Amino acid sequence: MTLEVIWGSGSPFAWRVLLTLEVKELGYESRLIEFSRGDHRSPEHLALNPRGRVPVLRDGDYVLSESLAIMAYLDRKYPEPPIFGRSAEETGLIWKAISEFQSYVWPLEERIVLPAFGIRPLDAVDMQAAAGELHGELSGMEQAVSRGGWLAVERLSAADLAVYPFVEALLRAAGKEAVRPLDLGLLPLAGRYPALESWRQRVADLPGYARTYPPHWREAA
Amino acid sequence: MTLEVIWGSGSPFAWRVLLTLEVKELGYESRLIEFSRGDHRSPEHLALNPRGRVPVLRDGDYVLSESLAIMAYLDRKYPEPPIFGRSAEETGLIWKAISEFQSYVWPLEERIVLPAFGIRPLDAVDMQAAAGELHGELSGMEQAVSRGGWLAVERLSAADLAVYPFVEALLRAAGKEAVRPLDLGLLPLAGRYPALESWRQRVADLPGYARTYPPHWREAA
Repeated sequence: MTLEVIWGSGSPFAWRVLLTLEVKELGYESRLIEFSRGDHRSPEHLALNPRGRVPVLRDGDYVLSESLAIMAYLDRKYPEPPIFGRSAEETGLIWKAISEFQSYVWPLEERIVLPAFGIRPLDAVDMQAAAGELHGELSGMEQAVSRGGWLAVERLSAADLAVYPFVEALLRAAGKEAVRPLDLGLLPLAGRYPALESWRQRVADLPGYARTYPPHWREAA
Repeated sequence: MTLEVIWGSGSPFAWRVLLTLEVKELGYESRLIEFSRGDHRSPEHLALNPRGRVPVLRDGDYVLSESLAIMAYLDRKYPEPPIFGRSAEETGLIWKAISEFQSYVWPLEERIVLPAFGIRPLDAVDMQAAAGELHGELSGMEQAVSRGGWLAVERLSAADLAVYPFVEALLRAAGKEAVRPLDLGLLPLAGRYPALESWRQRVADLPGYARTYPPHWREAA
């Protein structure tokens, strides 16, 4: 059975799934679609996901969208190494870290990332307000990774794979020409958050990482 | 080991966990706290969850917050009956339904529920706009439950338990005196969504359901 992933360059949601596949050393076919060309609105893509989003996973006849659902599916179908914990207690802590990211971190982050990437109008005051609150969350993450090196439990887990692409997206947003003068206090990350910076490096050192890196980020670097 | 749940009346997040405990027929101690008295800001509660939210679960020395994390923990620790699927394919579909609720439904619903419950100022135009989009999501849910009776797979799953309390909260919001004149098209639910209405009834018929119903909703009914 061939695993196929449909993804878009720079989508942190899709990046989660690519990292999961690499960590589990699963071979997969990579189908990179182009948002700028409207590929995600093609009849072919909408047949797989009526919401027109990425990632979408195909595993034989089985089609699944929503990044966290794909991660949960892959972990159950291909359990080694487990990314949702080796015990109920770990499972709870991993989903807690993911839920907190989804509920408290992403709503702040998108107020910075979407304007930085031109998806929403730039609103300096709102971006600075969001950054102020976001520092509270980043401080919590800094404490978390200071303990055992990883976000939720003392080894790499789905929490790290789910959050990492969004940290990269945030830093990339903060470095955009229009955003840098706002002084959001995010760059360089190592300044305020040395443990998070080391954690980034640990993720970037994972085997197969290079295959997951957004191609157009490399070109524009 | 005694399971203890700290919850607040009417919190749909807490309601998810109570339903999970009942479906798994787990005995538990129920600690109902009062938001109006500021119990969630007490040092005792903040020691369990620094975010001051409910639900919080205690299982012996293990303390966990975030409703979906608690559900995942309970399902792994007390597997019968499984609520996150009997196969990887089911697990994927269940988390997909939950993720879609969290990402696409709740952001619309909260624009209605929070003003209706006095947590945000009432903005009729925004509430009507949110309701318009919400009907698209409700139609999708209507189709889903029309198939096998339940939201994600052909039996009760975590998706039903996670979404149900938010449907109840939405209907309660729509029935508030200040909201009824806005004609959001939600009441009675059976008018536009007969399959969802039957699904509600199936959840309300679960053994132990009465113990999970928000006490102050009963008084005010």
